[in-house]
Parts: sequence; structure tokens; C-alpha cells
Amino acid sequence: MKKRILIDMDGVLADVYARLFEMHEKETGKKLSPDEIAGKLEAEAFPSQRRWVSEPGFFRTLPVMKGSSEVVKKLSQKYDVIIVSLATEFPNSLTDKILWLHDHFPFISWKQIVFCGDKSFIKADIMIDDHPKNLDVFPGKTYIFTQPLNMLVNNSRHARVSSWAEIEQILL
Amino acid sequence: MKKRILIDMDGVLADVYARLFEMHEKETGKKLSPDEIAGKLEAEAFPSQRRWVSEPGFFRTLPVMKGSSEVVKKLSQKYDVIIVSLATEFPNSLTDKILWLHDHFPFISWKQIVFCGDKSFIKADIMIDDHPKNLDVFPGKTYIFTQPLNMLVNNSRHARVSSWAEIEQILL
Repeated sequence: MKKRILIDMDGVLADVYARLFEMHEKETGKKLSPDEIAGKLEAEAFPSQRRWVSEPGFFRTLPVMKGSSEVVKKLSQKYDVIIVSLATEFPNSLTDKILWLHDHFPFISWKQIVFCGDKSFIKADIMIDDHPKNLDVFPGKTYIFTQPLNMLVNNSRHARVSSWAEIEQILL
Repeated sequence: MKKRILIDMDGVLADVYARLFEMHEKETGKKLSPDEIAGKLEAEAFPSQRRWVSEPGFFRTLPVMKGSSEVVKKLSQKYDVIIVSLATEFPNSLTDKILWLHDHFPFISWKQIVFCGDKSFIKADIMIDDHPKNLDVFPGKTYIFTQPLNMLVNNSRHARVSSWAEIEQILL
């Protein structure tokens, strides 16, 4: 039986930070750097974040994380790939997120997508995520995908990965 | 620790059949009865079903199953209630479904909602559902909520329930 791998969307498949930096600069005229917001959750780092992500359309046009589509396609051969997003907090995000997946990850079927408010009750073997809150309670093998919010996290239980090229090397 | 109970939406919380019968009559002029479509999946019983449910708005105004909101509220005191819907096949349904839940089940937080394409990898103790395909692979206690599609199912592993009053009696 294939091992099941849970792959997060925002900050892992979708380059949400690229868009947040862009919108912050547009709204405030100030250009932030990843180091300036290291260790802060998105809502702390970008005061307007909740408003932005609540709007229809925000998630529809996010840039795709470099290499993610190619590597997830390869992973799908070897693993039971499930895309999991904590999305139910933002009702307008849901339709956008699924259409975005259809555009950029057309090999992922609707049966492999989970939108939820808590990842802790999904049975799987491996998790790739940028949020320690999801990784810390996951009983299987964990990979923390580097993003500003987790740059200061130093938990040896989670293997750190900073690109899809690295994930390809480790898991394939 | 509270037992976790997975509660399905369509056909269990949302009276999707009431709407399907109504739309079928409107479109064809023919009034169907539950007995006429017993044992048929929705798409077999109503040839236009896939078109209807793909449209934005279909799930936004479905009638609420009698007694469901009151009983689910009571269940929430005793159980870890999770609302789970196989919804990712229909991108337009997702935002509608969550707003519908906010309207009629306002005590259910976004953390208790799961939209997915496969319920088999969600860890829980009890499942209430109308689709045998979900119940058959669930390892815990199963309740089959009577709807036309499952009227001919005779699987003694699934306890049959036909109303929320019955569920209240059994689980509370």
C-alpha cells in the first residue's frame, strides 16, 4: 500500500507570501523583507492579511511555488497524495482554491483534496506544511517548509525543507 | 476524551431530495415519488442532477432536515462533532455549503467542517451518512440515514435511522 502524504497549499504549493509582500507594499508603500517578519504569523506580519484573504479572488491567482507542480506529479506515482488546506475559515477562498488547483495541478483529482479547519484527524504517514501547529500534532514523518512564520522554529522532530527540489531529493 | 462523530450534509442535514424532487417536477412536469427511485443514486434518479448541483446557488438555499439543528446542537455537548461533505467534486458548492452551515448551524465553527473527496481517511468513532460507499469503509459505529438511494440497502452492520428524533434517542 502506498504511503499517504498530506501536502499543504498556502506557503507550500501556493506562494502566498509573494502576494502578501506585494499587497503590503501597494497598500503602505513599504517594502518588507522576509527577515523583518521572521517568526511572526501572517496576520501579525501583515495587519491587513485577514481582510485580503477574505475577499473573493485572493486565492484564485496566487503564484505557484517553483517546482511544486512537477514534483507533486512525480510524488503522485509513488505516494497517495492528498492536498489539505485549512480553508474553512474563509468561505470565499474555497471555490477559488479548488479552481486554482485544477489550473496548476490538473493531475490532482477532486478525491485528493481536503479543505478543513483541523488537520489532526486526517490519517496519513507524511506531512509537508509550513505551520508548526499542524506539524506538531501529526504523528507521522513531518517536513517543515521554510516560510517567514517558521524561520525561528527549531524543532528537531520536523525535517526542514526550503524548496521543492529538496523535497524531490528526499522523497523520490 | 469525547467520541468523534462525523455527520454528513446532503441527505442528512440538508434536505437535498426535497429540492431534487421539486426541480425534477419543474423541469419535466412529472412528479416522482421516493418509492419510484428507491435504490437509485441521485444522478440515476434525476438525469439533470449533475447540472443542477454544479450551478452556484444550489446548495445555498436547501431546506434544513427537520430537527437536525436542535439535535446536532445537543450532540455537540457530548461529542466532538465534525460535519463532513464530499463536496470537492463541485467547486461552486463549497462557498455555498459553508454559508448555509453558518446560517442554520451557527454553533458549528469552521474548525468542525471538512469538505473532501474521500471520507475514508478521517479518524472518528461514529458516522451518520446516507451513502453506503462512505459507511461501508468506516471502521467505527455506523448509522445509515434513510434516503431513496439507500432504501434497498440491507446491511446489518449499519443501524438504520430515519429522522433526527431517532438519532437523538439513540445517541443522547
